[in-house]
Amino acid sequence: MKISPIFEIAIPDTFTSNYGNILQRTVAAGFLSRALSIFQVEKVYIYRENVKKPNTRVARQLFKILSYAETPQYLRKHIFRKDRDLRYVGLLPPLRTPHHLLKKPIDDIKRGEVREGVVILSSKHYSLVYAGLDTLIHVQERLPKDSRVTVEITRIERNKIEGKVVDRCKLREYWGYSVILLDKGIEDLLKEKRGCLKILTSKWGNNVSLMIEELKKSIKRVNRVLIVFGGPQRGLLEIMSEEKARKLSDFILNMAPYQATETIRMEEAVYISLAILNLVRLLP
Amino acid sequence: MKISPIFEIAIPDTFTSNYGNILQRTVAAGFLSRALSIFQVEKVYIYRENVKKPNTRVARQLFKILSYAETPQYLRKHIFRKDRDLRYVGLLPPLRTPHHLLKKPIDDIKRGEVREGVVILSSKHYSLVYAGLDTLIHVQERLPKDSRVTVEITRIERNKIEGKVVDRCKLREYWGYSVILLDKGIEDLLKEKRGCLKILTSKWGNNVSLMIEELKKSIKRVNRVLIVFGGPQRGLLEIMSEEKARKLSDFILNMAPYQATETIRMEEAVYISLAILNLVRLLP
Repeated sequence: MKISPIFEIAIPDTFTSNYGNILQRTVAAGFLSRALSIFQVEKVYIYRENVKKPNTRVARQLFKILSYAETPQYLRKHIFRKDRDLRYVGLLPPLRTPHHLLKKPIDDIKRGEVREGVVILSSKHYSLVYAGLDTLIHVQERLPKDSRVTVEITRIERNKIEGKVVDRCKLREYWGYSVILLDKGIEDLLKEKRGCLKILTSKWGNNVSLMIEELKKSIKRVNRVLIVFGGPQRGLLEIMSEEKARKLSDFILNMAPYQATETIRMEEAVYISLAILNLVRLLP
Repeated sequence: MKISPIFEIAIPDTFTSNYGNILQRTVAAGFLSRALSIFQVEKVYIYRENVKKPNTRVARQLFKILSYAETPQYLRKHIFRKDRDLRYVGLLPPLRTPHHLLKKPIDDIKRGEVREGVVILSSKHYSLVYAGLDTLIHVQERLPKDSRVTVEITRIERNKIEGKVVDRCKLREYWGYSVILLDKGIEDLLKEKRGCLKILTSKWGNNVSLMIEELKKSIKRVNRVLIVFGGPQRGLLEIMSEEKARKLSDFILNMAPYQATETIRMEEAVYISLAILNLVRLLP
């Protein structure tokens, strides 16, 4: 069941840059993809830590690995080409979310079922979608070839399946995350995000355990929460000035008060923060 | 600064058995060691998931990797021999806890400083301890050779340093965890642990967000909290009967209510649970 408010996160393009090799970066990204799935995060923004000097290569790699991890297995080889950035994806842990369905024989399909697919053929009046079934799904609409779509099965006949495209945001189940590679910094993202509760995480933020009541009230009032993480070298209050951070956000929180390690890694911070904020959004 | 109550955790000997190779198991254990350090966990019990059929090999491997990760770098080669179980420890993330100090020249040492060391020489009236300094520390006590000790520097003279052994539990800073490989199952451990708050984690437990007040009251009353995790194949309520679980524990909690993944991995569960319980122990 989908929970509200919806979570979105923003991470810097330096997220995995402290790892020396792509094997370790893949493991870290896989770990991140699991956290996003456990806590039903719908969007991941990758922002530029240094607007003038973007970390493009690492960011694109992270973008690809996260997108790959989110794609149901039966679609992966249809959507991703052989790519050196994806050479360790065999190490990615399975997500086992509701949208990661298995391949299925046509006899087991039911009307109303929703599946992720990719458009294989696109003609003027209809499209054919591959969604891990023995048969392609016939959709009466022109869809961009090779695009990924969410399809609801509307009719099943002998060897023919019809479906329609649905908006995954409107499904009752969590249906994966999307990854957005930004060409701007965190300040611009925060400025654009109106009507959304903005929480920055920082070792120098307020002790979260002292803010629970206030946080709960704020979370209950919104539909979306954006949770922002700093980089492995520079925390959010170094990336932005403290003044800017305060002005552009609703909370600056230390999610692991009295941490006994000098630093907390990004993927660790994501688990810790999402665990706590999930708890808070469910408080009675 | 050390926080109270103190946390201890119990994990099954199957903890890393779902990982096919030792590289992945090392990464998972490294991740676990970080969680323990961030949240100041003092003890890790490895219990037998199946009392009659212990998973000895994997458990010993986990024991060694966790112990290795907890050992300050300058001591590792003095304490651990070359071992195939430790062949990927290069992938372990540094902990950077207060007790993971760097090697230091003698001129930089101050009286009162506390360091981890290993006993290099043991004679009737004194022992010599290596603690990452240019000089061995002279301790006026017979200590078991090769044992690991915590030493406080009591006197510094030209080329001679004296020290005394201190109890790491009494230090004001978090000073690492110890790993205890049990030859019994979780039920026996729970029975022995009196005066300690016992929290079992389970997907089928109570939604933690509905239990915060009760949990807070209980946590504030004790000095120690034992947090128990199930295995990758079988959760705690499969390892024990639900009746036994209720009888032997104070809480059975679902730490990630409405999780969108089918399962939560052990190392993920540890982060999620410790983040939440750390928050609760710090609530005003």
